[in-house]
Amino acid sequence: MLPSSPHVEDVYLGKGRLLESARAGTLLIDCSTIASEAAAKVSKAAAVRGFTMIDAPVSGGTAGAAGATLTFMVGGDEAALELARPVLSAMGKNIFHAGAAGMGQVAKACNNMLLAIHMVGTAEALALGVKCGMDPAKLSEIMGKSSGNNWSLEKYNPWPGVQPNVPASRDYAGGFGVDLMAKDLGLAMEAALASGASTPLGTLARSLYRMHSTAGNGRLDFSSIVKMFQ
Amino acid sequence: MLPSSPHVEDVYLGKGRLLESARAGTLLIDCSTIASEAAAKVSKAAAVRGFTMIDAPVSGGTAGAAGATLTFMVGGDEAALELARPVLSAMGKNIFHAGAAGMGQVAKACNNMLLAIHMVGTAEALALGVKCGMDPAKLSEIMGKSSGNNWSLEKYNPWPGVQPNVPASRDYAGGFGVDLMAKDLGLAMEAALASGASTPLGTLARSLYRMHSTAGNGRLDFSSIVKMFQ
Amino acid sequence: MLPSSPHVEDVYLGKGRLLESARAGTLLIDCSTIASEAAAKVSKAAAVRGFTMIDAPVSGGTAGAAGATLTFMVGGDEAALELARPVLSAMGKNIFHAGAAGMGQVAKACNNMLLAIHMVGTAEALALGVKCGMDPAKLSEIMGKSSGNNWSLEKYNPWPGVQPNVPASRDYAGGFGVDLMAKDLGLAMEAALASGASTPLGTLARSLYRMHSTAGNGRLDFSSIVKMFQ
Amino acid sequence: MLPSSPHVEDVYLGKGRLLESARAGTLLIDCSTIASEAAAKVSKAAAVRGFTMIDAPVSGGTAGAAGATLTFMVGGDEAALELARPVLSAMGKNIFHAGAAGMGQVAKACNNMLLAIHMVGTAEALALGVKCGMDPAKLSEIMGKSSGNNWSLEKYNPWPGVQPNVPASRDYAGGFGVDLMAKDLGLAMEAALASGASTPLGTLARSLYRMHSTAGNGRLDFSSIVKMFQ
Repeated sequence: MLPSSPHVEDVYLGKGRLLESARAGTLLIDCSTIASEAAAKVSKAAAVRGFTMIDAPVSGGTAGAAGATLTFMVGGDEAALELARPVLSAMGKNIFHAGAAGMGQVAKACNNMLLAIHMVGTAEALALGVKCGMDPAKLSEIMGKSSGNNWSLEKYNPWPGVQPNVPASRDYAGGFGVDLMAKDLGLAMEAALASGASTPLGTLARSLYRMHSTAGNGRLDFSSIVKMFQ
Repeated sequence: MLPSSPHVEDVYLGKGRLLESARAGTLLIDCSTIASEAAAKVSKAAAVRGFTMIDAPVSGGTAGAAGATLTFMVGGDEAALELARPVLSAMGKNIFHAGAAGMGQVAKACNNMLLAIHMVGTAEALALGVKCGMDPAKLSEIMGKSSGNNWSLEKYNPWPGVQPNVPASRDYAGGFGVDLMAKDLGLAMEAALASGASTPLGTLARSLYRMHSTAGNGRLDFSSIVKMFQ
Repeated sequence: MLPSSPHVEDVYLGKGRLLESARAGTLLIDCSTIASEAAAKVSKAAAVRGFTMIDAPVSGGTAGAAGATLTFMVGGDEAALELARPVLSAMGKNIFHAGAAGMGQVAKACNNMLLAIHMVGTAEALALGVKCGMDPAKLSEIMGKSSGNNWSLEKYNPWPGVQPNVPASRDYAGGFGVDLMAKDLGLAMEAALASGASTPLGTLARSLYRMHSTAGNGRLDFSSIVKMFQ
Repeated sequence: MLPSSPHVEDVYLGKGRLLESARAGTLLIDCSTIASEAAAKVSKAAAVRGFTMIDAPVSGGTAGAAGATLTFMVGGDEAALELARPVLSAMGKNIFHAGAAGMGQVAKACNNMLLAIHMVGTAEALALGVKCGMDPAKLSEIMGKSSGNNWSLEKYNPWPGVQPNVPASRDYAGGFGVDLMAKDLGLAMEAALASGASTPLGTLARSLYRMHSTAGNGRLDFSSIVKMFQ
């Protein structure tokens, strides 16, 4: 699980590195969150040398890892996924086959972009309601049982004091950091550029997270974006 | 249930209209979706004349009305809500007390703004995934079981053919129209202006819905926004 | 020159106020920056009572007022504008006839929305260039002589030290404040709501100015928006 | 002048291509509009082999090329720029030294992002004014002499019939195409990703241009974006 595409390319493709040194028949599982093009390129090089490889980025954070409740989004052959399943199952609860090599990365980029969008949207909606005189807990309850419901609202409420045991209730410590979310939104932007997609809310969410980081909040949990609206 | 603030003000406040003609002791229930300031103003005028009034906008559409599963978001005294409950229960399943007069409107504006944001976000994420090579049903399944989950994805998937019995699977006929969503987003914008809130994703969603309408899609279901990204 | 629509309505339309107390034949010149609907409503009421009235919002700031170089954007009859011209000329250099009553306000709202958009855009472009290694003065010079040129870049460069005698070179003191710009962008949003227009960049600019104000910068000059990107 | 980074990398760095086949001492001038990283990488490889190279993207379009009025934004040594000047002068009027290798690309990406932003902004402002009842020529004149002035408004008015001899007055034929602008905005996004910059209006402009292209307008002039708002 490496931080970015160049690290992964180096570790697998560099002189004397994995593809040149791994034992024949080794199953390669890369859990980094990187560009899907990079994942596909490394997988292809692995196949040329006879290795089976999957890209298997995770979501669920350190708590998910500790509790073996991570989600794996897997790109590569289904047969390879079955070989990997016992290993992945030891760490995760949901293991999805997203498609061919690189598709694990696509699934994660899309998911995290959507997560960022509804987190920012939830923050905006709660701040708007509070400025208009509503109680944030009451508004959260109403939207949570209505068509506004989403994972951020239900499991990870960004307003301090509405839910116990979420980062918002401990000054946004722990959790999934602003800079990590900005990085993932950057990967979604790269995918949008490479595929010609337009993602107006997703790219705006990235700008907001980058500005939030610029203002000194890069290490806070990503639900702290609500501070921009309070 | 009237279309906009001026209609409601006229029907209640106009010469010889409701506040001048209703029988003493009548409980007034207004189910229009209008500006919260207008709702609060009418409620106050009603109180001055001795009437009890609630603002009780609904969500759930024509299907919800037919099946008596509407959601009511109620502003006004709790005692007034209890008086109204038998009537509302005949049409709705969830009846929420949002707060003082006008707060029913605030709750609905916030909820529908958040709904629009995650509908547009879901459309963007699915279109991005498909352009990168993923299957939309597979991507919907993965995000639906992950942190990207939201009501639009789970109950109202905008991609044609992914879910049965949703507008996307019948050419976006029926459902909740683009122009109605644009109207509700306009009410959220009015609330943002009146309260000094900033709602970057919400106002962008309104612009996108208005542009989608301008392109001739005003009467399609609001999940048709995915066409802008395909 | 009053701060907002309700003040203007009160001063002209209130019991015993201007329309009831002004001498017959008085030419009414309102230089407030307010909603065009409010301006048109007051003008109409003035006409009913036999007064000639124009809406004549200004741009140019305190420096423009002191130097008699203000710009007036006038709504109302051309004949009324000619009556007012000697008075306006004593304070301003450019006097434009924008159209019928209220159109002075429309012209100003559109102009200031466009100003905000290219100020934010200029700030983004300069910050992007600097982060990529360019000198901000060099980049300003190149864009200023190319198709990126605009009033903000040419007359009011937001990057500190690039131009003398602009707010950016005195810690953003003086000039046109962030909160005033946010107010004008609010009027443009009101106009967009009333007319069904979509203004994606304009409403995003308002959100950014509101967030910048929320972060404590409401009294700085509006070119300080560049701080969000540095 | 090649279409994208991979083409340039191939032509210069490929086996048996330019860097391996050019005569010693050849001055290399690349006028492609590509990523600055790619330009810097090729320049560095050229230097290793003893060549002097500049990146010199242009603006001004086919009319500028025909009339020898192009603008060149040059990255590389100043001495190299002086060597190239006679050649560039035969085609262009403004020749700017933007900085070290790759900076020509940075300057062009920033300039064209800013151009796109004020073109979209001008289109929004004009459409807003017209929907509120103003004459587009009158509004253009007023903003053109006020703080809303920018190159798009002054030289390239997007509203049909306001200016002669611009694409808007010939059904958006000729000029600088929507797809080319979307490509340049993609390069600005790449630069923002690589440098960690946030460009909220710039990335939103890209999304709007991509959506406009998706709706079938990819080959129209980029001022046709006004159609999205009419």
